[in-house]
Amino acid sequence: MPRREESASYRTLGWVGDEQTGHLRLIDQTRLPTEFIEIDCRDVPTVWEAIKLLRVRGAPAIGVAAGYGAVIGARSQGVKDEGTVRKALAEATAYLRTSRPTAVNLFWALDRMDAAAAATPPSNGPALLKRLLHEADAIAEEDRAMCRSIGKFGAELVQAGEGILTHCNAGGLATADYGTALAVIFSAQEQGKHVHVFADETRPLLQGARLTAWELQRRGVPVTLICDNMAAQVMKERKIQKVVVGADRIAANGDAANKIGTYGVALLAKAHGIPFYVAAPSSTFDLSIADGSAIPIEQRDPQEVTHGFGRQTAPAGVSVYNPAFDVTPAELISGIITEKGVIRPVNAGTIREVLAG
Amino acid sequence: MPRREESASYRTLGWVGDEQTGHLRLIDQTRLPTEFIEIDCRDVPTVWEAIKLLRVRGAPAIGVAAGYGAVIGARSQGVKDEGTVRKALAEATAYLRTSRPTAVNLFWALDRMDAAAAATPPSNGPALLKRLLHEADAIAEEDRAMCRSIGKFGAELVQAGEGILTHCNAGGLATADYGTALAVIFSAQEQGKHVHVFADETRPLLQGARLTAWELQRRGVPVTLICDNMAAQVMKERKIQKVVVGADRIAANGDAANKIGTYGVALLAKAHGIPFYVAAPSSTFDLSIADGSAIPIEQRDPQEVTHGFGRQTAPAGVSVYNPAFDVTPAELISGIITEKGVIRPVNAGTIREVLAG
Repeated sequence: MPRREESASYRTLGWVGDEQTGHLRLIDQTRLPTEFIEIDCRDVPTVWEAIKLLRVRGAPAIGVAAGYGAVIGARSQGVKDEGTVRKALAEATAYLRTSRPTAVNLFWALDRMDAAAAATPPSNGPALLKRLLHEADAIAEEDRAMCRSIGKFGAELVQAGEGILTHCNAGGLATADYGTALAVIFSAQEQGKHVHVFADETRPLLQGARLTAWELQRRGVPVTLICDNMAAQVMKERKIQKVVVGADRIAANGDAANKIGTYGVALLAKAHGIPFYVAAPSSTFDLSIADGSAIPIEQRDPQEVTHGFGRQTAPAGVSVYNPAFDVTPAELISGIITEKGVIRPVNAGTIREVLAG
Repeated sequence: MPRREESASYRTLGWVGDEQTGHLRLIDQTRLPTEFIEIDCRDVPTVWEAIKLLRVRGAPAIGVAAGYGAVIGARSQGVKDEGTVRKALAEATAYLRTSRPTAVNLFWALDRMDAAAAATPPSNGPALLKRLLHEADAIAEEDRAMCRSIGKFGAELVQAGEGILTHCNAGGLATADYGTALAVIFSAQEQGKHVHVFADETRPLLQGARLTAWELQRRGVPVTLICDNMAAQVMKERKIQKVVVGADRIAANGDAANKIGTYGVALLAKAHGIPFYVAAPSSTFDLSIADGSAIPIEQRDPQEVTHGFGRQTAPAGVSVYNPAFDVTPAELISGIITEKGVIRPVNAGTIREVLAG
């Protein structure tokens, strides 16, 4: 059982105060799990650095940080003159785009902030700034609503007392709120359906150990950390009744790309007759991809494997295979939990149906 | 492909010189994979410490070290008087037993050294010492012959060009020679059947990354290191044609206990139609155990998971499940490679047959 001395909840990131003097506060995730430190961002370079250095991570959370960063930038040259606000906003969004050029959600959120300004009829600086904070809040609020909706639909699948295995971190730390896979667990807990979570540590970067275990512990959900290679044994001992994981990208037929190791967990779940669920927002679906075979698998730095723990743990010069993720075929997925409902069984037809609904 | 700059072979441990002035030389495995350091043991405390601190590890290798340690002890008070040699031997074996009280092979080897002395008719000190070195050499030689025989039988199953996955370290570093699972690979290579090995890093203690990758690299076998959770993806990409692992204990029906994660690998192999072999000497079988359900699974220190390599990677106080090994059911094992031949199919009848042969 986890220690409960830290039963307080946490907010991954959010705005504190009003549009004129407020600021963005975010958890420095690079310090977790050993230190809980919140950073107050009062200027654009601090936001830029937080995104760049992965103090804030996860597509939704990056989008929310960027939105608030745009607000901070817009007021940075003073707000009396509306033209000054517009110019400062444009400079800030251009600059923030350089913080993590491959993060799709970063661009999406900054485009949305620029568009909000463009769509605001000329009035005055303070009013424009208020409108911008409203837009950034909307980005955060939509993310929150998405998490809660996934949680609600997912919790209906959970029975009290179940053991749930998760892999990597599809939690609140990647979003402005409850996360996706972990939203299912947090919602079940809120409904009084207490579960016990087994968290794969998730090599090589240990997101399960560093982030998922921390989040669950922090929110008072019983969690047991295991190494990835222990999942089969825990299933064999009948400690797991469900697997719930996130997804990075889902093809039109339901094949789901997620953190490396997910496909193996799905196979092990099948071998033990355990339902395997994916929890992901509808924005994760890429219907232009017919199936998972079209998803290229990125190779990452071998040093993540050979120097993972601050120490060299493999012989110098050894060859390493380090795929960032894998693809779980739709036939291994019992259901996909989206904010629009649960897709079950998983196939091209049911996906189109639920996403349209 | 691995670097081949270190193509020289290595000897895990062995005797250097004659019985009067020679010594035990062993690789300090606690320094691997970043440093290759051999230790010359010329007194009993140095042997004791090497066993205690896991500089030498693996049941067969510990037995061999103990045998040579007994020789070093027997001559420590001078060899002119036979009674002095006998007394010094008894003191040395008693002391060496305290180095690792749970290592069955340690006791077995020291009992054997004591018995060899008891069975030697009175003659003189130098002759007795010669007899003792002969016995210690025999322990090492029998281990070597076992490794070579497993290698020979196993290599017959291997086709040139195959990809072979292994888990943990069932290699030469645990024995006086070729190891068990890795003997299959080394023998195939000697026969010109070149293979490519994928080595699971094997959390939590990373024996695959630290030892298996090192051994294979050192002997010029192409090896690619992966995290445990990548095995399924590598299999899906058809890079693996066989799995070969070791075993700690095998029940009468063929259920095999081995390092945690082995059972999961067996399930993944089955899902991909890949043959799964266990390589182990006949001494690994415990025919008094009907099946794997009677094998208790030891829990190890949570810190192995949370503080893997000098850094805390999980939140303080988190609950951890850390089973030392798991049991792979016989029906997932395509064959068991022993020094007496390959047991295939695996069941109580074929096991009795081959072990008797």
